[in-house]
Amino acid sequence: MAETGGGGMADGQPAPTAREHAFDLATAVHGGPGSWTAEVDPGWTIGDRPNGGYLLALAVRAALASVEHPHPLAVSAHFLAPAAAGPAALEVTTLRVGRSLSTARVTLAQDGRALLEALVGAGRLGADGTPDWQRASGPPDLPPVEDCLPGQADMPGVRINILDHLDIRLDPATTGSFLGSPSGRLEMRGWVRFHDGRAPDPLALLQVVDALPPTSFELGIAAWAPTVELTVYLRGLPAPGWLACVARGQLWRDGWFDEAAEVWDAHGRLVAQARQFAGARRPRSS
Amino acid sequence: MAETGGGGMADGQPAPTAREHAFDLATAVHGGPGSWTAEVDPGWTIGDRPNGGYLLALAVRAALASVEHPHPLAVSAHFLAPAAAGPAALEVTTLRVGRSLSTARVTLAQDGRALLEALVGAGRLGADGTPDWQRASGPPDLPPVEDCLPGQADMPGVRINILDHLDIRLDPATTGSFLGSPSGRLEMRGWVRFHDGRAPDPLALLQVVDALPPTSFELGIAAWAPTVELTVYLRGLPAPGWLACVARGQLWRDGWFDEAAEVWDAHGRLVAQARQFAGARRPRSS
Repeated sequence: MAETGGGGMADGQPAPTAREHAFDLATAVHGGPGSWTAEVDPGWTIGDRPNGGYLLALAVRAALASVEHPHPLAVSAHFLAPAAAGPAALEVTTLRVGRSLSTARVTLAQDGRALLEALVGAGRLGADGTPDWQRASGPPDLPPVEDCLPGQADMPGVRINILDHLDIRLDPATTGSFLGSPSGRLEMRGWVRFHDGRAPDPLALLQVVDALPPTSFELGIAAWAPTVELTVYLRGLPAPGWLACVARGQLWRDGWFDEAAEVWDAHGRLVAQARQFAGARRPRSS
Repeated sequence: MAETGGGGMADGQPAPTAREHAFDLATAVHGGPGSWTAEVDPGWTIGDRPNGGYLLALAVRAALASVEHPHPLAVSAHFLAPAAAGPAALEVTTLRVGRSLSTARVTLAQDGRALLEALVGAGRLGADGTPDWQRASGPPDLPPVEDCLPGQADMPGVRINILDHLDIRLDPATTGSFLGSPSGRLEMRGWVRFHDGRAPDPLALLQVVDALPPTSFELGIAAWAPTVELTVYLRGLPAPGWLACVARGQLWRDGWFDEAAEVWDAHGRLVAQARQFAGARRPRSS
């Protein structure tokens, strides 16, 4: 996975060597080729729950280490139960070996209990930036980074440890929920990069697609939104620098909502498309 | 699966009993609870390839027969290799049993080779039609059914057997590819119902999300577009009658494209959201 060492190019930040980058340390897997172990890192949590995108990156790293192709192309994950910081086991089964695509299944378990299962289609992403066709809509219309609101790790009642690693700047238009006046729409926008200057790569994009606060916050639901399913399509090798992220939902019904996310790189290229199915209960009236 | 017998309410069509409906016969599974057998039906093919949505419905039927919850909520499938008409084996593994959600993995194999693997989150969909929140965009703006173009089973060089079962009426605005002048956009719209009057249900929606011709046709690529990954979120119990379908892609690059589909029922309710990652190669210039 040569891409994971390409960091240090973000503006004005230190350039640690690959082995010093927190994301690579936190997603390290050992063993293989079928059975891996890892340590779920307490630094990539919200409260005491590891972030879903972080867990997915960890699981996919084990899957990629077990197949010939270097990049995830299409990843589908079902979250079965919350994980915790501490040791984890990852079982990888190869389902398909092909010229342009390999497919593997990976199951992440703790204490013998499966917590996350993902199907991973792996291939090779191009560095070339020219799409054969692209819909006219471009990157999200975000204010400049300096006009956005930095994510706050210390929130009332919960510490968001992952913000020690992810530098997130939210579009003020989608942060009403933090000020008591949610927008009323399933929508969240912001800039994301690693604090330590690690450059983005396809594995990091699996983290980034789940980095923004849940769009359900903007419906006035100030509670954890458990992800049931998360699918990510990787569309290109991201350029170094800030990633522009947007997440939008279409329907909240019967306690479930959908959320579609896009990640655009510093060159204005669409590099990841994600969608998740998550739970959100209407708050009890007091 | 009580919903599968609710057919016969489409206008002016016969109302066969449940056991006579072609879709239910073609997705029948036998055995269980972990290991099932089925017959991949030659009537649900394009050329000699079974339709992906049909195969997914067959696989999910086995998964649903193995868990307590009646409806698929979030289904993620990876297609590993083309299937053929004939006997198939389905292995189902329960991954999670919960109050509002169960999760199972199902693998469809022929001659001992895995061809399709899916993760199925199952729950209970409401019959109530009131969303807690919905984005303002409504059903696709389709011409009336009688102004749309019926799908033709007999095409040059290929017979589309599945059109003997699915009554598809395509929006003339997205059928340019059949007349030699594709629109140049990844977009396809149309009405869908079963010819035999079977009413739609969540299982049928898994078929319907993959029923329209590939959007890549409208980029002038008149070739089979192999689906790598297909995710479907089921959002409500569909009303009897025509289903309005729209599929749109955002990016074609490096031989891959994405396609997001929506299915709206006869009461104007969003009942399914799907997305797939598929292959499309630029035609060689002659």
